Amino acid sequence: MIILGLDPGLGTTGWGLIRAEGNRLSHLGNGHLKTDTKAPLPRRLAHLDAMVAALVVDHAPDAAAVEEVFVNSNPQSTLKLGQARGVVLAAAARGGIDVGEYAARLVKKSVVGVGGADKRQVHAMIQHLLPGAKIVGADAADALAVAICHAHHLANAGLRARIS
Amino acid sequence: MIILGLDPGLGTTGWGLIRAEGNRLSHLGNGHLKTDTKAPLPRRLAHLDAMVAALVVDHAPDAAAVEEVFVNSNPQSTLKLGQARGVVLAAAARGGIDVGEYAARLVKKSVVGVGGADKRQVHAMIQHLLPGAKIVGADAADALAVAICHAHHLANAGLRARIS
Repeated sequence: MIILGLDPGLGTTGWGLIRAEGNRLSHLGNGHLKTDTKAPLPRRLAHLDAMVAALVVDHAPDAAAVEEVFVNSNPQSTLKLGQARGVVLAAAARGGIDVGEYAARLVKKSVVGVGGADKRQVHAMIQHLLPGAKIVGADAADALAVAICHAHHLANAGLRARIS
Repeated sequence: MIILGLDPGLGTTGWGLIRAEGNRLSHLGNGHLKTDTKAPLPRRLAHLDAMVAALVVDHAPDAAAVEEVFVNSNPQSTLKLGQARGVVLAAAARGGIDVGEYAARLVKKSVVGVGGADKRQVHAMIQHLLPGAKIVGADAADALAVAICHAHHLANAGLRARIS
């Protein structure tokens, strides 16, 4: 199955696309969706919406996944992130696919093996798990990480179903 | 021109539609868009997105308006509101219309004449400005208020343009 990981942000949303067959993973693509910082907020959100919708149409993923939000202590940042995240979730769900949400610790645990891993360890392990992938930046790496987490979650759910 | 006011919320989004010709206002419709509290968040946001998009298609407003957000002291509430607000702004802007944002004080000042007016005064004045309108509830009333604010803003901008 094809899984689309998303790391929402108003300025930059990271995306990463993987193919998962049980525990075998392969990299299909990754990138950054950027909005024009000089455009009015509703235009930026509509542009983000259109770009996520285009990803879903172009790549026909079977599922999508995002990290649960770390609520920032700055309420204005939380609002800004929330607005972008709402658009990303709605655009993915509008395409008819289910969107999984995973806590940051669970994503790290899935990728590195420990929930307290730092970003550098996560990014190094993604490169190891998806050999040959050219990752465009940190937001795309985070998006690939949550896609891998979703793949592990589905593989384990399948395993549990087979042995029960 | 036709103005769509929106009061975004994940559970209930209020909407109000008015026709404005200079300072003459008339009521066209109002209502609440509700999402299923038992559905997963991405589904609820996609449903909200579809309902706002349908309003824009059905009524072909020339402009939309929302209140600027009062950032809640509870970050989880701010995130939840932000997600719904992002979807509402993107869905309106996707329809090709500009979306004005107004501070709550300015909305109250436009409707009642004073920025410190309470909700009850605002709702009573809306009923007075839009005689005969059957307003379904508080969120729809707030949506009509921001639509009226946008109409006043446009009328004053037009007046300024004529006398300058």
